[in-house]
Amino acid sequence: MLRWLTAGESHGPELIAILEGLPAGVPVSLDQVREDLARRKLGHGRGSRMKFEQDELHFSGGVRHGSTLGGPIALRIGNTEWPKWTEVMSAEPVDLTEVSRGRGAPLTRPRPGHADLVGMQKYGFDEARPILERASARETAARVGLGAVARAFLGELGIRLVSHTLAIETIRSPEDAALPRPEDVDRLDADPVRCFDAATSAAMVERIDRAKKEGDTLGGVVEVLVYGLPPGLGSHVHWDRRLDAQLAAAIMGIQAIKGVEIGDGFETTRRPGSQAHDPLHLQDGTIVRASDRAGGTEGGMSTGTVLRVRAGMKPIATVPRALPTVDVATGEQAKAHHQRSDVCAVPASGVVAEAMVALVLANAVLEKFGGDSVAETRRNLEAYLAAIPASLA
Amino acid sequence: MLRWLTAGESHGPELIAILEGLPAGVPVSLDQVREDLARRKLGHGRGSRMKFEQDELHFSGGVRHGSTLGGPIALRIGNTEWPKWTEVMSAEPVDLTEVSRGRGAPLTRPRPGHADLVGMQKYGFDEARPILERASARETAARVGLGAVARAFLGELGIRLVSHTLAIETIRSPEDAALPRPEDVDRLDADPVRCFDAATSAAMVERIDRAKKEGDTLGGVVEVLVYGLPPGLGSHVHWDRRLDAQLAAAIMGIQAIKGVEIGDGFETTRRPGSQAHDPLHLQDGTIVRASDRAGGTEGGMSTGTVLRVRAGMKPIATVPRALPTVDVATGEQAKAHHQRSDVCAVPASGVVAEAMVALVLANAVLEKFGGDSVAETRRNLEAYLAAIPASLA
Amino acid sequence: MLRWLTAGESHGPELIAILEGLPAGVPVSLDQVREDLARRKLGHGRGSRMKFEQDELHFSGGVRHGSTLGGPIALRIGNTEWPKWTEVMSAEPVDLTEVSRGRGAPLTRPRPGHADLVGMQKYGFDEARPILERASARETAARVGLGAVARAFLGELGIRLVSHTLAIETIRSPEDAALPRPEDVDRLDADPVRCFDAATSAAMVERIDRAKKEGDTLGGVVEVLVYGLPPGLGSHVHWDRRLDAQLAAAIMGIQAIKGVEIGDGFETTRRPGSQAHDPLHLQDGTIVRASDRAGGTEGGMSTGTVLRVRAGMKPIATVPRALPTVDVATGEQAKAHHQRSDVCAVPASGVVAEAMVALVLANAVLEKFGGDSVAETRRNLEAYLAAIPASLA
Amino acid sequence: MLRWLTAGESHGPELIAILEGLPAGVPVSLDQVREDLARRKLGHGRGSRMKFEQDELHFSGGVRHGSTLGGPIALRIGNTEWPKWTEVMSAEPVDLTEVSRGRGAPLTRPRPGHADLVGMQKYGFDEARPILERASARETAARVGLGAVARAFLGELGIRLVSHTLAIETIRSPEDAALPRPEDVDRLDADPVRCFDAATSAAMVERIDRAKKEGDTLGGVVEVLVYGLPPGLGSHVHWDRRLDAQLAAAIMGIQAIKGVEIGDGFETTRRPGSQAHDPLHLQDGTIVRASDRAGGTEGGMSTGTVLRVRAGMKPIATVPRALPTVDVATGEQAKAHHQRSDVCAVPASGVVAEAMVALVLANAVLEKFGGDSVAETRRNLEAYLAAIPASLA
Repeated sequence: MLRWLTAGESHGPELIAILEGLPAGVPVSLDQVREDLARRKLGHGRGSRMKFEQDELHFSGGVRHGSTLGGPIALRIGNTEWPKWTEVMSAEPVDLTEVSRGRGAPLTRPRPGHADLVGMQKYGFDEARPILERASARETAARVGLGAVARAFLGELGIRLVSHTLAIETIRSPEDAALPRPEDVDRLDADPVRCFDAATSAAMVERIDRAKKEGDTLGGVVEVLVYGLPPGLGSHVHWDRRLDAQLAAAIMGIQAIKGVEIGDGFETTRRPGSQAHDPLHLQDGTIVRASDRAGGTEGGMSTGTVLRVRAGMKPIATVPRALPTVDVATGEQAKAHHQRSDVCAVPASGVVAEAMVALVLANAVLEKFGGDSVAETRRNLEAYLAAIPASLA
Repeated sequence: MLRWLTAGESHGPELIAILEGLPAGVPVSLDQVREDLARRKLGHGRGSRMKFEQDELHFSGGVRHGSTLGGPIALRIGNTEWPKWTEVMSAEPVDLTEVSRGRGAPLTRPRPGHADLVGMQKYGFDEARPILERASARETAARVGLGAVARAFLGELGIRLVSHTLAIETIRSPEDAALPRPEDVDRLDADPVRCFDAATSAAMVERIDRAKKEGDTLGGVVEVLVYGLPPGLGSHVHWDRRLDAQLAAAIMGIQAIKGVEIGDGFETTRRPGSQAHDPLHLQDGTIVRASDRAGGTEGGMSTGTVLRVRAGMKPIATVPRALPTVDVATGEQAKAHHQRSDVCAVPASGVVAEAMVALVLANAVLEKFGGDSVAETRRNLEAYLAAIPASLA
Repeated sequence: MLRWLTAGESHGPELIAILEGLPAGVPVSLDQVREDLARRKLGHGRGSRMKFEQDELHFSGGVRHGSTLGGPIALRIGNTEWPKWTEVMSAEPVDLTEVSRGRGAPLTRPRPGHADLVGMQKYGFDEARPILERASARETAARVGLGAVARAFLGELGIRLVSHTLAIETIRSPEDAALPRPEDVDRLDADPVRCFDAATSAAMVERIDRAKKEGDTLGGVVEVLVYGLPPGLGSHVHWDRRLDAQLAAAIMGIQAIKGVEIGDGFETTRRPGSQAHDPLHLQDGTIVRASDRAGGTEGGMSTGTVLRVRAGMKPIATVPRALPTVDVATGEQAKAHHQRSDVCAVPASGVVAEAMVALVLANAVLEKFGGDSVAETRRNLEAYLAAIPASLA
Repeated sequence: MLRWLTAGESHGPELIAILEGLPAGVPVSLDQVREDLARRKLGHGRGSRMKFEQDELHFSGGVRHGSTLGGPIALRIGNTEWPKWTEVMSAEPVDLTEVSRGRGAPLTRPRPGHADLVGMQKYGFDEARPILERASARETAARVGLGAVARAFLGELGIRLVSHTLAIETIRSPEDAALPRPEDVDRLDADPVRCFDAATSAAMVERIDRAKKEGDTLGGVVEVLVYGLPPGLGSHVHWDRRLDAQLAAAIMGIQAIKGVEIGDGFETTRRPGSQAHDPLHLQDGTIVRASDRAGGTEGGMSTGTVLRVRAGMKPIATVPRALPTVDVATGEQAKAHHQRSDVCAVPASGVVAEAMVALVLANAVLEKFGGDSVAETRRNLEAYLAAIPASLA
């Protein structure tokens, strides 16, 4: 069983993440983590804040000489903007300077589409800062950091993840476009919107530029693909053991995600049954699926084909043309606070989704194969595959 | 914290479900449960098996004189077909009669779109019966039973659930159709496909009839609506506390579901930010949302407006025009086993989705308000609402 | 991960238990369960109620032809006294007959040492029946039933459990008495107090007889021993992964247990460090421990030597010479209700403790070795043992 | 639901702890945490290492201006010795200097009574450093840090914890000694062994001095007392909801603890039933218990009287007169590594036990009363107490 917690506020000193339950002997490095954190900032349409995030990075525990120890892994991601916020976000009571009083002024105009208003109601605050500091997508950096560690573990077992942008607003990759593979990741990361189809990518960039001019924001759809999974992760025996259920929670648990699909998802609902599943065929004595409409799961279990999970992201809720709201201090109609200037975070959300999928899969692997060292987990995985009778393989 | 487990096989003696953590004093009756079990069988396009399911029903524990005791609630749903299966599904070793040998013959032609093949690989079986007996959607009866109990609890707090069919294959309710409300449930249940729009309903019935003639099956989309939720269920502070994440898992954890949406879901991804959120307005001194695109959650928390969750169901995988597969006993190409004859289970899946949503919400209510008797939970809920300052309400 | 829930009231129709997460292929039978349920009733000093408990027994799910299927296992234990209680404990509202009005009269004199008073305060009842029906030790039958299943799984891996009575009140087995082994279980079960030392057993029986005459009750100490454990179950890396912590919860979670020890427990606290641990020695090229003071765990992990866990049970709180209490209906001082007539339940509590230990160990085995069939778990276990280098073995 | 994880190695850069689920508005300060960390180092018989631990302390998240925000609280405890260990414990691969090669030399002589040997077997290491770095009791500093936060929360509800030393080896406080109360904590902390009985304290100090001379170590017994608990925390309805079971796990999950008792614990097993429970009496119209043998729980629930939990600690396993072991590098008999020089850690273990009890109780409070701000939790608690009918109070 893998457990993990993240902590830290958007303008706090640092983000902290702990991952508990990973076997010993997984090769991990700060460079891997740093690379994924950098990928999380990719994408045409990101504002200037992203450039600030040159995160100072530390393993506080769980890793020694480039390899996990079997105990909890702690990651610390420093906030380079922290010096500006030491008073406003101080853990200890402080006397605010005038500058800090300005920067830390009560946020009394809750932003539609954000946690602001309901967070204040729930936690008993009269302004939104205590809410938005934690609700901010800055927190996903902690998840991406742990996701890099989970991915290193999966990599040792031959499991590789890829994410790409399927759609930005109404601009969408053709249905029959080829799926990117692990060897395409560098090319994807180099694309301004992490889209695998060049023509679509160009149209997306254009759309983002237009939205920027119009003071608007854009959402879209990303897809995570996983190669090299063994059959049998997750289970049909109880709903919460289903891999698809776990993936759905992990994806919907990302800020701004409003829809999740496995495989062809909602498109499948529009096909008759005779064309909605993946028939089984013999090929060179092996059972193969003629298609991958299901997205690599049947009965809530990985089938061994490519896993495909999609996330639908709403447009960034902090719209430059600020949305109507109410100032809760004055009780007057107002315009919402405007805290950042991104137009489109879709390309980056693929990287966050990858991290979440990696964490779910790492847990599913441990659930099925156990193991306290990566060698033990790998041995158990290989013995399982070897024990599947030829007639079923 | 609410915990629950279900057990039982499709052709076993009975389904069992335990719900642990519900407060004392919730009025529950077998009639409520029976009614929901009956609603689960609704819908044009269901085969004859459904008619057999006249389930014998018992509370084995947790309820006395029509009210919960505070301890685990156990529900037992007998299988009226059991007498035919006593040997094939006997828990104890038995000598099979010839009839039972026929009925219990090894299922060696795994059905595409089902757990069959990967289940055999995972659990080490050489035929599919041990897998499909548990993977079958018959198990959802247990969830619906517990969902009825969870709903009784929510009802005591003024929270009401409604589900309806949005689409069957490509036949879809108009986008601007009115949402059904709690008082419309009887009308919905009386509709042959549980669709609130009469014209759409008629087209759906026609489509199902045609599919039946063609030996095909159909999927679709259902929506669960929840009225009367307080703001602040779920939380933004950690991904797995988000109500939307929990709902996504619960919905995707239903057999045959391939997509989940909150509110307008993927449609939201195709709108610019200026038209994708719900602006806040003052109305008679109260803060109201001008729309409900978000589906009743912001920052992973219920906002207090109508919760809307959608599930996309693939067509039934047991297609009468049987799909190609491989006979794992002979190693030859074959046609898949055909075990039931439903054309479309979409209308019923709304009832299952309702049950899952009810269970998630009951847990979220307890997480926020605690309480060991329904009076205590209600008191805490009311005190919370009363304590929200006028400026935020 | 193994999960389990029990449900049912002491005078309800039946107890229900579900065990979720056990691999497929474990040979289980109702006879094994029945045998453990019978052992739970053993012991000089049990009252007449025990004789009534000729439980009707069913697997409702998870087992087919004597072997587990990999899905949740449900056990149903009928209550042979149920016909007398159908009205008093009816799940549905009923009109009580006069007899039932007597039998079901409000229990307003809460018994000291029981859940009665605080249960009423917590759950909002004005009499104790809704509390004591669930708090009663009758519920342990459900745990013992599941424990028998867990033990069958462990048995497939060469792991065997034994429990015995160490002390009844002040009558205690000599410190240097030999430990019973798996082959001694029949002899232990035949002993009137499940004590391995004949002279101590005789003194215990005498003490029980005397207590019975005096209208008093007795507690004592039992010990569970586990043979054949591999090293490395549990972990030092996080407190709640420690096997000793998990065992402590499982044992203290049994009704009437007030103390738990691992190995020599509190006796160890009275020894200097030089005599409190188990030195390591080489014996025929293998590392062995010269003693087993630790009780088979170091750093919260099983060491591979005999696991020893002790439970201290308070005397039965329903003392025939009834204890002083307050009648909450009249507000007057009163004598406590007297509901059963056992003098001493210590011998039986060893069987319950065995069940709890079996469930903890089955979970720990799965956590380390994974596996969806018992063959897979065994293969992983054996490969792990084989991979421990000779220098460490 | 409260969740928490700790991370970090004994000689790593820092310990990290995250506590997730605490309400907003709890007043916390680094000073409170620092004070508890200092108390954890108290006690005659601690070696020089303790003096080094002048921990640098930070809240990395979850606290602002002296008050919790409702999100995860992260605590970072720097290791002042880290500069000496930067190479040996580097997360990244490094070339060791000669000094570091000495300090980081493989630990191939596993210490009896420690996790060393079995940890190496389990996690696949050929030396003990990767094990002992995490198994070390240094990790308890992280728990004590979080315990201070949990205690601040409990304090807002009028719940206060006290711990004291009952016994060191065979030197034990008299049975009839008065129990220390919250107002006695300073006096306890000032006592060299945190014992409330002056004469016993003096004898303990003497015993420690003698053990030091003899190169030996000592264990003992500590007790945690909790004042101001409401009745009804925990529950009888399922074993793992029992407060005593949760406390037992939390206490046994502390390094070196081998026994746990609630109330009079094993002593209760040696009393007849007529003298083992706490009779109920009316006093000024209120129901009171004539004694507190049960230690403040009945049926696994807090009764509202003083909670008493005891922990039995084995002597420190790193005995100066080193214990026999095997050098796994040479395959020869050897003397165990000797890494620290404490004689007795019992006084400090009371502070660790306090922290664990505080974390269990904070969770139990939230389970029963819910609440996202301390004001909400307190309101729910007070309304519950007010609603208990006079006849039951």
